[in-house]
Amino acid sequence: MNKPDLTPDQIIQALNWRYATKRFAPDKKIPDDVWKALEQSLVLAPSSFGMQPWKFFVVRNQETCQQLIEHSFNQDKVAEASHLVVLAIKKDIGADDVTCYIDCVSEVRNVPKDKLEGLLNLIEGYLNEPPFPLQPDKWSAKQVYLALGFLLYSAAMLGIDTCAMEGFVPAKYDEILGLPEQGYSAVVLCTAGYRAEDDDAADQAKVRYKTESVVQCID
Amino acid sequence: MNKPDLTPDQIIQALNWRYATKRFAPDKKIPDDVWKALEQSLVLAPSSFGMQPWKFFVVRNQETCQQLIEHSFNQDKVAEASHLVVLAIKKDIGADDVTCYIDCVSEVRNVPKDKLEGLLNLIEGYLNEPPFPLQPDKWSAKQVYLALGFLLYSAAMLGIDTCAMEGFVPAKYDEILGLPEQGYSAVVLCTAGYRAEDDDAADQAKVRYKTESVVQCID
Repeated sequence: MNKPDLTPDQIIQALNWRYATKRFAPDKKIPDDVWKALEQSLVLAPSSFGMQPWKFFVVRNQETCQQLIEHSFNQDKVAEASHLVVLAIKKDIGADDVTCYIDCVSEVRNVPKDKLEGLLNLIEGYLNEPPFPLQPDKWSAKQVYLALGFLLYSAAMLGIDTCAMEGFVPAKYDEILGLPEQGYSAVVLCTAGYRAEDDDAADQAKVRYKTESVVQCID
Repeated sequence: MNKPDLTPDQIIQALNWRYATKRFAPDKKIPDDVWKALEQSLVLAPSSFGMQPWKFFVVRNQETCQQLIEHSFNQDKVAEASHLVVLAIKKDIGADDVTCYIDCVSEVRNVPKDKLEGLLNLIEGYLNEPPFPLQPDKWSAKQVYLALGFLLYSAAMLGIDTCAMEGFVPAKYDEILGLPEQGYSAVVLCTAGYRAEDDDAADQAKVRYKTESVVQCID
């Protein structure tokens, strides 16, 4: 695998180009090859122990998107964006999920399962008796936000506009999309596509605290 | 701001190149210009409402790093990596933080504060009476994980190795680094630098569930 070699300036440029898109051009769709890379950003995102306590639902049915608007504080971008991704946690992650993950490690790395008992015990120990109180759903939600970061970042690199959204009613999304039946629950959304020409938010200065207020060196 | 135009293949390549580095080369240090870009990935990371409920502590004092090893499940990479970043939440975020943020919006965008009352009320309403129970520290922690995603991703793009770490004792880190006095609390770590030549983890196949298991289209 070749080592990537972007320059610091390319990074900074992409990070400044992106913004939380308020209005999307409803007729512009993300090409398939670009979408596949965005999807892979979610698949390849890291998670604690590599457990991937998540699933990503891509809502393409326009009727469903329309139905979700009222459960998204009437933000119609959930229907106007090219893609709506509902990032969900696996509910109540536990021993079965650890076994499932160990099976995957065994298969991908071609290692017999009995050689993975140490890893299995380590993860189960962490989930059951962590050094600090661990609530599985909260833990899984944090992992999902990391994956969200990967999705937003890939999009910026590829010139795709996005908006991460917490302003929605998870219980309604769960119900409409049938997530509980599968053992999942929505935690955050991401709309992706292309900014509308008249999206005023595109021209607003990015608001960030000064670097010295949020980064502190301990020398 | 020019639109970034990386190719899908460049994205996939970087995502596959990165891995959770187990052993760092202790003598290799990240150059200043590269580090500044990584730091800006944290500063420019998005957060809910743009609130930035966080602070990032970069531990450069080698004695302190050594002292932290025993509170990191004896993982000496916290001292061997070029940089150790402690990602922390602002504790009990509330009305004062919203005011502070509104002041920042007013200054950066040159908008009088009385024109920002709508935004202020929106954020305060969300924090105080959200449509679902919101626990400030849990909410802030999720935002921090998104920022962690940005840091890991930028590093991969720049050919810098990283390892996100939950295996540490936050209370001990808080105490040693004096975070509570500033109103912060550690939630996750990131070590960054260059992989040791003998880090076996570098050659192991990446373990991920199949795309069709974690991405589901709702057509």
